[in-house]
Order: sequence, then structure tokens, then C-alpha cells
Amino acid sequence: MTAPVPADILSRLKAVLGEGGWSQEPDRLAPKLLEWRDRWVGNTPFLALPRTTEDVAAVIGICFAAGVPLTVQGGNTGLVGGQIPMGEVLLSTERLRAIRDVDAYDDVLVAEAGVTLSAVHEASAQVGRRFPLGLASEGSATVGGFVSTNAGGTQVLRYGMARSLVLGLEAVMPNGEIWNGLKRLRKDNTGYDLKQLMIGAEGTLGVVTAAALKLYPLMASRAVAMAGVESPAAAIELLARAKDETGGAVEAFELMSRIGVDFALRNIAGTRDPLAEPHPWYVLAEFASGEPGSAEAAMERFLEGGFEAGLIRDAVVAQGETQAKALWAIRENQSPAQKPEGATWKHDVSVPVSRVAAFLERADAAVRALVPDCRIAAFGHVGDGNIHYDVLRPDGGSDPQHAALRDEGSRRVHDIVDELGGSISAEHGLGAMKTGEALRYKSPVEVAAMRAIRQAFDPKRILNPRVLF
Amino acid sequence: MTAPVPADILSRLKAVLGEGGWSQEPDRLAPKLLEWRDRWVGNTPFLALPRTTEDVAAVIGICFAAGVPLTVQGGNTGLVGGQIPMGEVLLSTERLRAIRDVDAYDDVLVAEAGVTLSAVHEASAQVGRRFPLGLASEGSATVGGFVSTNAGGTQVLRYGMARSLVLGLEAVMPNGEIWNGLKRLRKDNTGYDLKQLMIGAEGTLGVVTAAALKLYPLMASRAVAMAGVESPAAAIELLARAKDETGGAVEAFELMSRIGVDFALRNIAGTRDPLAEPHPWYVLAEFASGEPGSAEAAMERFLEGGFEAGLIRDAVVAQGETQAKALWAIRENQSPAQKPEGATWKHDVSVPVSRVAAFLERADAAVRALVPDCRIAAFGHVGDGNIHYDVLRPDGGSDPQHAALRDEGSRRVHDIVDELGGSISAEHGLGAMKTGEALRYKSPVEVAAMRAIRQAFDPKRILNPRVLF
Repeated sequence: MTAPVPADILSRLKAVLGEGGWSQEPDRLAPKLLEWRDRWVGNTPFLALPRTTEDVAAVIGICFAAGVPLTVQGGNTGLVGGQIPMGEVLLSTERLRAIRDVDAYDDVLVAEAGVTLSAVHEASAQVGRRFPLGLASEGSATVGGFVSTNAGGTQVLRYGMARSLVLGLEAVMPNGEIWNGLKRLRKDNTGYDLKQLMIGAEGTLGVVTAAALKLYPLMASRAVAMAGVESPAAAIELLARAKDETGGAVEAFELMSRIGVDFALRNIAGTRDPLAEPHPWYVLAEFASGEPGSAEAAMERFLEGGFEAGLIRDAVVAQGETQAKALWAIRENQSPAQKPEGATWKHDVSVPVSRVAAFLERADAAVRALVPDCRIAAFGHVGDGNIHYDVLRPDGGSDPQHAALRDEGSRRVHDIVDELGGSISAEHGLGAMKTGEALRYKSPVEVAAMRAIRQAFDPKRILNPRVLF
Repeated sequence: MTAPVPADILSRLKAVLGEGGWSQEPDRLAPKLLEWRDRWVGNTPFLALPRTTEDVAAVIGICFAAGVPLTVQGGNTGLVGGQIPMGEVLLSTERLRAIRDVDAYDDVLVAEAGVTLSAVHEASAQVGRRFPLGLASEGSATVGGFVSTNAGGTQVLRYGMARSLVLGLEAVMPNGEIWNGLKRLRKDNTGYDLKQLMIGAEGTLGVVTAAALKLYPLMASRAVAMAGVESPAAAIELLARAKDETGGAVEAFELMSRIGVDFALRNIAGTRDPLAEPHPWYVLAEFASGEPGSAEAAMERFLEGGFEAGLIRDAVVAQGETQAKALWAIRENQSPAQKPEGATWKHDVSVPVSRVAAFLERADAAVRALVPDCRIAAFGHVGDGNIHYDVLRPDGGSDPQHAALRDEGSRRVHDIVDELGGSISAEHGLGAMKTGEALRYKSPVEVAAMRAIRQAFDPKRILNPRVLF
């Protein structure tokens, strides 16, 4: 538990933040204390609502000097509990919402931490550019959050994680000093890359207040198709072919199992079965190109080759935007569609692409040994080796009974991931939830290095104290 | 100056390295003590030639315990003096030359530190893949070196710096412990990204012993063209158009001035003037695509549009590989062609792309105010805002007189770079040469953070002690 915040510190925080810059109203605080999947309910004595980088610096400076811990929150879309305070001061970036600049020559957009991903997309489109980070939560997720957690999403295969899409950062260090690293350079070899260190540090090494984001041109052609396949191994074989056909320019390559499609058909209104017959697995592929007609041509070659090689059982190419959206909706609804089905063990893991099939085979056996009739809904960004491996309770089974086996089940899954050279958190981060589990797999050398860095930056561990090592 | 290495330490190093694993022979040492542009001549009491990661760990462990400093050297192609020892033990990675794995499904190649970039290219081609890092020095430059210095080169625009091309690292920490971070994952959000911290740290936070490198598919079509243009501003306008035409898939977009072409014609045998008439500036553009014929079509659209907009004065499209190589040779010989022309102030700077023209205008005025008749050969990766800004002595002028003004001239150039939000070392790094200069421009917050990290990793500063802050 976190110690109470001294009254004089609260007074000083109120004074620097001014009217509208803080709150202690339960109604104002409530939505920020509840994680969106209802897994965590937090508490805080004080919500700081800074409007400028200088405000953030003042708040952190006061807390640092007094050793008062803070938890930082963006759009509250995190899945690992990192954004929910448990007694700490809560610093929200919601009022840091200026888009400071957009430049189509530099291909850059400079946005403050509280700007939503949707707003970034809109502002980019206005100058004929796009920011290729796609998250289901983009209406709420914010710049500060997706940068600090190195968010992934559906376009990583071509554009990389958030880490690859940041040219510069402005942040407040744990001691309250402002670091202006808001460059817009493609090349800068002048010492350690602090920006890369802060990206994915989950707010423990500094609070990101603004980022210079990398923009890309709009695409002249785009093709989306869904294919029914026999197995994950067939999907991996198709992925290699897709990369060859497009010169590596595959926008997305997603996999899901039939049971996940069934859940969507059953639980998400308006879902239609994408192909005439059911298939054991489905691949959703999207190609895009600057060349008019090129993505469509590549998709045609890809599907033809896949049929001829016996890798594709059936396929549909989206005719227009509406159908493309409908196909994507099936994929994006994989997680929401599970909710009415009862208790689930969720995993966000990655393995080398070549080992995806081996992982699924071994993990299925391991969890079925524990819960023979469990329902396994695996889906995800197979192009990155990233599988959301979700294990639902048996049809009609007991939720509490399944939940009680979660830790043991997850451990079995994670052990296999580790043996295959994978990661137990591919894109969600460790937050407050997975840090202990990660310690089981990380080498002591690596953990020691991380702790040494944190100690050097934040000796009193005031920033997001419950997060990471 | 570095203190002499105690005799008992040398004995212990010899014992762990065994026969063939070390040398004190002047002839064996000589080529490793001379920087290739002859700017630095170093000295060392002992050359360590470890053959395995464990050997490296043993050497560094002994040195760490005794507080004996080391300098690490790969292919000795660095341009900022970081690899030349000045009395330290010299650790060469030349015997760490295994390619441990190549996998076309994972699109990964795992190579030890001493493997040359050329060898990486060859091994990738053998599995139908490529590693898109292109350096003029690729026959000598090694994995450990290009990773530790975050090398750039000609394909950064599309594929990023070395930093973007590394999936995992194995390294020996300053205390001699081995960190096995040799994962081959596209996604792994489990704490700070130590790999990204070590890339570009110039060997001060650990010695890279192996890297898992990211491979890409081969391209089905490729087009190379050289265009004569009026000004850098026209080149920047063309760059934006090239990105649009290709959906961001421009392989390279290089700029050089007429005087650099003249130097190549005069000093590099076999060079031919690329276009019928001389032009003030030249753009070398390369497009590539997975779609057969697509790069050629995009190039045609690009050049047509450029002519119509009055941005291109004349252009030639390479007909086949030989002509493409001849065009590239003019660009790659820009630096060698300067050598017979006398003393030169060299700069490796970057600015935001939108400010390249402003930089050139201001820098030209600033150096001409100092040396009115100096010859300015600017060239580089304009697509990344990276300019090699070289200022040669006046025709027939005095070399010593020009060299004597170097520091003042460079300071003027760097001040302008800084005012434009640029970097004084875009791709070469700081090494032993530029660290002092970088201190003039870095914020105290940033330097303090870097020093804190180094202190945490290497409290005795034994690794590359003369390099970085």
C-alpha cells in the first residue's frame, strides 16, 4: 500500500495546477479508477490535470522532492493494470491535447501526450498523409500511452511497433526536469538513444508529454482478402509467399480459428460468415501499394498461387471499402465476442514466426491436459508471430472453476513460449500484472540492467512504482 | 593517457585466450592502430583476439575487476576515432565470425560480431533474402561495428538505420557478464529495450558479440535514375513526389552538387558525365517493388511529373545493372574523389528534410565569410535530411592554412545545424572526435541521463573510455 500524501504536498500541487487543474471529486475520479475490462479498481487521493509540460514538470518536481509516488494515465485503455493508481497521486494527460505541428515535407506530426490516436489519424489525413498505427482502442488511446507502452496493433508487419514511428520525444524526467528531445530527424547518432529507452518503459523513466510522429504517404491501391486454410502451418507458408509477392509490403496478415469466427457470429450482431463453408482457420490479408492497381494485382497472384499450392481452401476478396470493413470487423471482434462466453485465460504472446504452429500444438495439449474441454480461441498478428492465445471455460462450465485454474494454465502456456524463444508479453506490456511472471523468464543480467537504469533515473521510485521491475 | 597494464593482468589475459588468441607483435598490431583516413595513429600494449563469446566475457571480466580499460574494434572503418586505442588493451572481434543461423521463415540471420556486412549480404542472398543496409565500406565493416554505431547508409529512407534492422543481441556487459538477448521476435514488450539502448552506444555499455538481423524479400523490380536539378529545394519537392508515387517505398534518394561530379570526373578513372549538359545539382533515385514492372512504372510517372512541374532539367534512367552501377559509382565516389583536392572540413549533419535548402544556403554563406573561395561539395542522403557537407580549400590554396581554420569553420556549420533543429552527427557517431563538440549542443538533462546510465553499467569506465560522454 502507498503511504498517504501529506496535506502540504496536496496544497502545493493545487497551487501550481490552479483551478480546473486538479480534482478530488469521486465522480470525476471514478472513470479513471476503473480498468475497462473491470479487472482493476483503483484509488487515489488526488487527480492532477496538468495543461502544459511545465505543469507536469512542477507536479513531478514536487512529488520527487517529497518522495510522493505518482501513477500516470493516458486514455485508460491499458490491459495490464499499469494506469490504475492504488493510492498514488494520479497524473492524467487528458488536458495535454494540442497538435503542435503537422508537416508533409518532414512527414511529421507533433502531438501532445493526451491527443488520441484517432485525432492523430485525422490530422494526418488532412495533409494527405497517414500514421500507420492501428489499434482497436484508437478513439481513446493517447499519444503518451501508445508511445510509453510501445503499442503494436495490426500494421506492425510493415511499419513496426510504436517504437519505429517516433522521431522525437519531450518528457519530464523523474526529478521534474524537462527533456526536450522533440527532434524531427531521421538520423541522429549523438549518444544513447534516450527516446528508444523511454518508449516501452511504461512511464517509469519519465512522463512523455509530446511526441514527433512519423507520417507516411497515402496508398493508391489496397486489397483485402479472407482465406480459409487448414492449419496455422499453411498460414505461415502463405505469409512467406505474401511477403515475396509484395516485396515485403504486406500491410497486415492476421490469423484466427473457426471457434473465434463462431463466437463473432453468435455474439456480435451483424456478423456474417465470410465464406460459404466453415474452415478450421482463417487468414485475413491486406496489401497496399503506391502504384494504382498494384495491391489488387499482387493479391490476385498471391491467392492464385496459394490455391495452386493447395494452401488455400477458399477465399474472398473484398469488393470495396464496406466489404473490407466487414472482414476486418470479424477479426477486430475476436476479443469482444468472447465476453458472453464466460471466464477466459488471456495471453498476449509472441514466438518466432517459424514456431507459431509448434507453439499452438504444444500449448493446446498443455491446456487441454488441465481442462480437457476448454475452448481455445487463438488469433492474432501471425505475421509478427504474435498470438492472442485465449482459453475459455468449457461450454456450460463454471466460471469460478476456470478462473481458479488461470495461474496454472498461464504458467504452462508461458513456459512453452519461453522454451520456443518467445515473449510472454508481445504488445500489451508488463504493467502491474505481468511483472512477476516476467521475472520467471528474464535473465538476472537483464533484470539487473533494467533495475540499474531505473535506479539511476528515479532513485526514489516515484514514477509508476507498481509497474515493471 | 592510459596507465600501463599490470604484467599479471597481461599474463592472465594470455592464459584465457590461449595460443592464437592474442598478439603483441608490432606487425600484427599496426593495421589496427591506423585509422583508414590516416587521421589517428594509436597504440596498445596488447591485442586480444577472442574466438568465442565466453572468451570475450573472460577478457572483460579480468579487465573490469582490475580497472583496466579496453577499446573494441570491428572492421576499423569508423570515421570518428572510436576504434583506435590510445594505450588501452585492444579487443578485436575479427575471430568472432560464425554465421550461426539463417532462416527465411523468420526472416532472420544470426551473425557474430566479426562477420562482415558483405558476408551478411551473401548469406542472405543464398536463402533468397536480403539485408538492406548498404555501406561503402561493407567489405570490411562488421556486424558488431555497424550495430554498435547504428550505421546508416543509402537505404535508410525505406528501411531505417541499423537500429531498425536488429531483432536481438548478445553482448558482454562491462562487468564481464553475458547478456543473451538474441531473440528473433518482431514484438516483445517486457521491460526496457536494452537492445535499443546498446545499439548506437558505441561499445560503451557492452560489447556486442552477435546479432539477430532482420531480412527482407528480394525485389522483383528495380529502377535507378539520375536527374539534373536547379537547386536543393527542387530536390526536396521531388522527394515528396517520389514518396507519393511509390507509397513511401523509395529505396534511395541522394543529392550531390556539380562540383562533386566534377571531382569524380577529374579524380576517379572511368567516371562519365551522367547527362549531356552540366547541372547545378543531381538527384540519384532508386525505386524497388515486389511487383514486376512496378518500380519502372513508378519511375516513369515520377520523372514525367517532375519534368512537367519544371523540377527536372534532364534525366537518365539506367538501362540495366551496369548503367545503374555506373550512376551509383558517381555518388559513392563523392568522398574518395575529394582526396586529391587537398584539405577538407568534413561534416556529417542532418536537419529536418524541410530545412535542407535553408541549411545549405546559410552554411554556404557562413563558411564563405571565413574562406571566400572555398569549394563546397555537399552530397548525401537528402531523403533523410542527412548531408555530408564538405568544405575544401580554395583551388591551389594552402592545405595547412585551410586545416587551421577547420575548428572555426565546423563550429559555424554546427551552430547553424543546431539552430535548425538538426544533428551534428547524423550517422557516423561521436566517437573520440566529436564528443566535445556535441557537449556544446546537448542539453544538460540529456547528458546527465546518458552519464547516469553509463555510470550504472560501467562504474569504472573501462569500455571505450575515450568515447562518448
